[in-house]
Amino acid sequence: MHLDLKTWKHVFKLDPDRELGDEELERVCLSGTDAILVGGSTGVTFDNTVDLLARVRRYEVPCVLEVSEQEAIVPGFDLYFIPVVLNSRDPQWITGRQHAALKEYGAIMDWSQIVTEGYIMLNGESSAARITSSETELSGRDVEAYARLAERLFRCPVVYMEYSGIFGDMALVKKVSGLLGESRLFYGGGIDGPDKARQAAEAAHTVVVGNSIYYDLESALQTVQAVREAGGAAGR
Amino acid sequence: MHLDLKTWKHVFKLDPDRELGDEELERVCLSGTDAILVGGSTGVTFDNTVDLLARVRRYEVPCVLEVSEQEAIVPGFDLYFIPVVLNSRDPQWITGRQHAALKEYGAIMDWSQIVTEGYIMLNGESSAARITSSETELSGRDVEAYARLAERLFRCPVVYMEYSGIFGDMALVKKVSGLLGESRLFYGGGIDGPDKARQAAEAAHTVVVGNSIYYDLESALQTVQAVREAGGAAGR
Repeated sequence: MHLDLKTWKHVFKLDPDRELGDEELERVCLSGTDAILVGGSTGVTFDNTVDLLARVRRYEVPCVLEVSEQEAIVPGFDLYFIPVVLNSRDPQWITGRQHAALKEYGAIMDWSQIVTEGYIMLNGESSAARITSSETELSGRDVEAYARLAERLFRCPVVYMEYSGIFGDMALVKKVSGLLGESRLFYGGGIDGPDKARQAAEAAHTVVVGNSIYYDLESALQTVQAVREAGGAAGR
Repeated sequence: MHLDLKTWKHVFKLDPDRELGDEELERVCLSGTDAILVGGSTGVTFDNTVDLLARVRRYEVPCVLEVSEQEAIVPGFDLYFIPVVLNSRDPQWITGRQHAALKEYGAIMDWSQIVTEGYIMLNGESSAARITSSETELSGRDVEAYARLAERLFRCPVVYMEYSGIFGDMALVKKVSGLLGESRLFYGGGIDGPDKARQAAEAAHTVVVGNSIYYDLESALQTVQAVREAGGAAGR
């Protein structure tokens, strides 16, 4: 299956380590979102990943694994996103784990399914930023330079501004979207309903909605329509 | 000027911090080499770089800057190679200096002139490996995984196996060349004359000859013809 992520405006992110009932999962998968991204910062295992994949596979929505743990690389996803944390202080998160995974699986990988994600961690209080030892005290120019690095030097198809847990600086997100010619800007963080989703869709190419699925599903589901109706960057 | 580095089989590397007389430089530039790569590990400044560029520019040979010091980025080269040291333990050499340079110059760069080089440092005794804190205790599988990382995740047009000062493991170089479908494998290290050049040309796509220019120019010049006549990987 060839998936053109350049058309994706809205993505739901599901964490294998969190509980979601069958009925709730069905509503997420039939919501009209462009894809389900499976991934989390902690507690991701082969077993909980394969379980979640099997449950999502009942529906037609594309399903992508964001690889965090080498042990949790489960076959059968449509695409595999490989995060590279551009502002990490620890090379483990830039080349180290990626190298280890390629050493193990490089010879048998289907490269057409692999997408490099250039992550910029922007909330220093988040577990994602802490785990990856990210330098989050960044100026706007710092963020722009990381985005260019991702697009121009590493040619990442996805640049991901991750505010995990807080709603980010939409002026900056919009500016960075405008800098990118080839890469697609994913935005994640703090989208608790349609209003924030609309703002994010006017700034980023692709809006990722995660946490709110677990604490306010109704509002989370409303983000799909809100992103569809928004103008701006996501309309690219 | 559009330069297709995919056709380059032989490159001479000149160090702005080392002396080379006008007559010697002329012989290097008229040797039939495919390009002059300007770069060094220590002592590279704006002044010695601009001096060397001006001297090489009297000839038609393409001239490329391998950027090491941000202060020594001189306009007027045909291409700019941006090294990313894949096996460095210090993120400064993977994303840090690159980020700083893009923060300063990103808005005004001509991206068609920029080429990312995925370096694999392989001689732990070399100053290049020491300066970059590289992990050089690598198995063949480690090197293959770094090459795949460079080609597949970071889409580097050039993968550079750098044995700086010693002649490398040609069986491994040949194996890595064979893995690469898009990226070009540059080999550097220990080429003191035509015999080593021929062996390297049978293993790598592009052979880089540096040091021997400064201590045995006649032998260095003979490497051009030796590479031309070799079969193998450089013939790709």
